[in-house]
Amino acid sequence: MYKVTVVIKLKKGVLNPEGRTILRALNFLGYDEVKDAKTFKCIELTIEGKDKETIQERVEEMCKKLLANPVIHDYEILLE
Amino acid sequence: MYKVTVVIKLKKGVLNPEGRTILRALNFLGYDEVKDAKTFKCIELTIEGKDKETIQERVEEMCKKLLANPVIHDYEILLE
Repeated sequence: MYKVTVVIKLKKGVLNPEGRTILRALNFLGYDEVKDAKTFKCIELTIEGKDKETIQERVEEMCKKLLANPVIHDYEILLE
Repeated sequence: MYKVTVVIKLKKGVLNPEGRTILRALNFLGYDEVKDAKTFKCIELTIEGKDKETIQERVEEMCKKLLANPVIHDYEILLE
């Protein structure tokens, strides 16, 4: 069993309204030292298998097919 | 300037319907090796300041006040 973490971030230039809202709220609460806030999502998969390379390839495929939207997302696969 | 990443996960025992849906979708697409899927959110803050300890404390405060819901979330602060 492997734990694979897929990190899905918005591409550079794509607006992150959630992060924007967090930034404004933090500044409003008096945390003026916060200059930027960005959010991103992680998916932790538990995968059965032995060959790390195959797993990496299969997760890559999953990202393209389902997990990430290639138009707006960059993704990173972290294999434990 | 420091980059601080706040990792916000659901507490153990709290249902993660999004992860559940991802798991089912992946299995449906033929990725039967995936046995579990959990999602969590990360917030990357850019913070002005010099003293790491102060920053850590302030971010801890932000988590309690705004970023995380202590009833359902566990959080982790990663200072670069």
